[in-house]
Amino acid sequence: MALRAVLRNKRTLSGLFSQLSINTNHGRVCASTVLATHQRNNSTSSKISVNLDQSTGVAVMHMQSPPVNSLSLDFLTEFCISLEKLEMDKSCHGLIITSSVPKVFSAGLDILEMYGKSPERCGEFWKAVQEMWLKLYSSNMVTVAAINGSSPAGGCLMSLTCDCRIMVDNPRYSIGLNETQLGIVAPFWFKDTMVNTVGHRHAEMGLALGVLYSPTEALKIGLVDQIVPEDKLMTTAEQIMAKWLAIPAHARQITKSMMRKPTIDKLTSKREADVQNFVSFITQDAIQKSLRTYLEMLKKRKA
Amino acid sequence: MALRAVLRNKRTLSGLFSQLSINTNHGRVCASTVLATHQRNNSTSSKISVNLDQSTGVAVMHMQSPPVNSLSLDFLTEFCISLEKLEMDKSCHGLIITSSVPKVFSAGLDILEMYGKSPERCGEFWKAVQEMWLKLYSSNMVTVAAINGSSPAGGCLMSLTCDCRIMVDNPRYSIGLNETQLGIVAPFWFKDTMVNTVGHRHAEMGLALGVLYSPTEALKIGLVDQIVPEDKLMTTAEQIMAKWLAIPAHARQITKSMMRKPTIDKLTSKREADVQNFVSFITQDAIQKSLRTYLEMLKKRKA
Amino acid sequence: MALRAVLRNKRTLSGLFSQLSINTNHGRVCASTVLATHQRNNSTSSKISVNLDQSTGVAVMHMQSPPVNSLSLDFLTEFCISLEKLEMDKSCHGLIITSSVPKVFSAGLDILEMYGKSPERCGEFWKAVQEMWLKLYSSNMVTVAAINGSSPAGGCLMSLTCDCRIMVDNPRYSIGLNETQLGIVAPFWFKDTMVNTVGHRHAEMGLALGVLYSPTEALKIGLVDQIVPEDKLMTTAEQIMAKWLAIPAHARQITKSMMRKPTIDKLTSKREADVQNFVSFITQDAIQKSLRTYLEMLKKRKA
Repeated sequence: MALRAVLRNKRTLSGLFSQLSINTNHGRVCASTVLATHQRNNSTSSKISVNLDQSTGVAVMHMQSPPVNSLSLDFLTEFCISLEKLEMDKSCHGLIITSSVPKVFSAGLDILEMYGKSPERCGEFWKAVQEMWLKLYSSNMVTVAAINGSSPAGGCLMSLTCDCRIMVDNPRYSIGLNETQLGIVAPFWFKDTMVNTVGHRHAEMGLALGVLYSPTEALKIGLVDQIVPEDKLMTTAEQIMAKWLAIPAHARQITKSMMRKPTIDKLTSKREADVQNFVSFITQDAIQKSLRTYLEMLKKRKA
Repeated sequence: MALRAVLRNKRTLSGLFSQLSINTNHGRVCASTVLATHQRNNSTSSKISVNLDQSTGVAVMHMQSPPVNSLSLDFLTEFCISLEKLEMDKSCHGLIITSSVPKVFSAGLDILEMYGKSPERCGEFWKAVQEMWLKLYSSNMVTVAAINGSSPAGGCLMSLTCDCRIMVDNPRYSIGLNETQLGIVAPFWFKDTMVNTVGHRHAEMGLALGVLYSPTEALKIGLVDQIVPEDKLMTTAEQIMAKWLAIPAHARQITKSMMRKPTIDKLTSKREADVQNFVSFITQDAIQKSLRTYLEMLKKRKA
Repeated sequence: MALRAVLRNKRTLSGLFSQLSINTNHGRVCASTVLATHQRNNSTSSKISVNLDQSTGVAVMHMQSPPVNSLSLDFLTEFCISLEKLEMDKSCHGLIITSSVPKVFSAGLDILEMYGKSPERCGEFWKAVQEMWLKLYSSNMVTVAAINGSSPAGGCLMSLTCDCRIMVDNPRYSIGLNETQLGIVAPFWFKDTMVNTVGHRHAEMGLALGVLYSPTEALKIGLVDQIVPEDKLMTTAEQIMAKWLAIPAHARQITKSMMRKPTIDKLTSKREADVQNFVSFITQDAIQKSLRTYLEMLKKRKA
């Protein structure tokens, strides 16, 4: 499976551009900053800020990698390290994930990680995406996604791995696994997570059409659990967190494992093959050419 | 599994009759014409009309086998050949299936194919039913069912295999896998398709009780995706088709395969056994006797 | 898997107590009577009353083991024997299960069966719980749960195994697999039955949080099929039963088996291991100590 990017023609490329623009409400800034993000890959500035409240045992993780919190290798590495630290911290029981970037939760996988990279590097990137999913979906902490902006593709996946999803009720924000709209395909474990959340039929239709749901639509099909006004988001997230933390931890954890283990085991057992699939697909000349055309268009729009 | 017709007593038989009458709103005409259909099995007149619009790449298939578009071996053969032609036609990307027969989409499997036939012929019939399901459920085309009449049993199955279902909002039309009401049982792959569409619990209850849902009820449980006034059916079907065709084809096709392949593989791997089950069941003396009693009753009602 | 009781601190214990009190609306009486039930374990008085109406073929089973119809070994044994008798009675086609105890359908597994018992006795108890589930979930009869009171944990499980659930629309009654609230975990086959009824996501959230749903909430997620005023419960149960019995029996039974067999086979193939898991868990010193603390608290409250 793995990603099967194609982006073979102008229609798809401009479709992606306008979609990003519309979704994030950032217009040209949004598209141009994907490149900017890439250029800062070696920056030592933190892409993630974590604050753990010792009195409640709840950590709040702010994703702060403008313009769109795209999931680059650096971002994912920092994300997983933060997660691991919290997981091992006996005083931390819950994690709220949110964004410091206005109007965007996370735009998903960083396309620049897939262009002009060696097979080794592509494989490293894909392993990091897998690792993020594996760590979040099986976390012993209570995880709440406080979705305060658009959350397409990988951003939606990140939300789906949490125990609970609260989204700001703003019709300009959207959420969904919209990979097909870009000519690519969500891998099987994205799909499994979606099916576990909204059921087979909504997953089938949502994935086939690459639907980006408004908060109201997302609530209706169960893609998010609650929608709230923007200024109530963190308070609500904390209230929900308190409800989850009131449950004896070991019982909650065993129950979570019972529900999610089959899905996790499926990727674990096919992990290496999934990486190989991704690498052999993404390094094809045709795909690389499509990506180059796409990136050139982004640069042109920026100018 | 396979069909397990029984129809052991008058209550069941008259139940079937009245159900067909009620559902199709055809009264005696409906029941009597089942026989008529059978007598035309060797007719060379086309049971299916296909029109492909080269400008849109969308084919519209009208089922035109009065009185109830029942799925006879001839019908299924013609249906599968039409489907195969469209599938191989590079210019065809989408298929809308609808009925030319008033008030009926399709009444399902032709009972006459199961009576007084040799085991070989019964097996051939069952293979054709499997083939129809396999071809439709795995089609590379976008398939939309424009359901403009009642659609019980095999008619419902046909609808379920499409990517999308739109039904005319007429409370006299109904849809569902109502096999148990006739004393027979939907085979496992009918059941799997139902579960994939409406989930385990609605499938369990719908199959056990043989529920025929009104359009409103069908919409509520997700058995159809949209209900529209009769005069808006084809326009809506075309609009939905356009939305699906806007998605890059290969991404949509791979996603569809990812969602449906496990269900398809299940029948493929058990196909021969499924045929044998059907044949050995349907050729039993008790079942054949029940069918004869039933058919005699239909003739009598007709007279 | 099996039960993984813990109850390691006062908060959990008093949480359990207040929850039982609130749910059953029995306050101290409720808690105290758990012990009373235990003391009557060797009583020869019947815990279950069964009335079979020969004219309709419908049996009504009243659970009459005050104060809370808790599922002790004696209760389960008597329950399974009654069930087996009805199953073999050719004149019996349907079973309505309800409670004679005011405000409680069943409070679930009797905690006293897990305290101070030999491993052999614990194993015997767990086999009886399995047996109850296996018999009900695969019953050839139409089974309707007429839920006229609270139905937490094992009481909810019993309801879930029926073909149909009708609940009295009284907001003081609740239903759900609330094991985690007590620091214990529902075993995999409780979970499977829940997933089959309400889907993966509602099961995940309901099990993790140990949610006890009001009748209205239970209806909304599909945990029950219908809610009715208390005085309409039995009439409605009988009407629904009549609808199910109108379906040819063998077709209904084969369909039921097709839907439920995979879930049943899963426990059947792991039955002995599931017993061992339960016994080795429940007989741990730490667990026994927790149970003792809990039971002492109940006695104290009673005094």
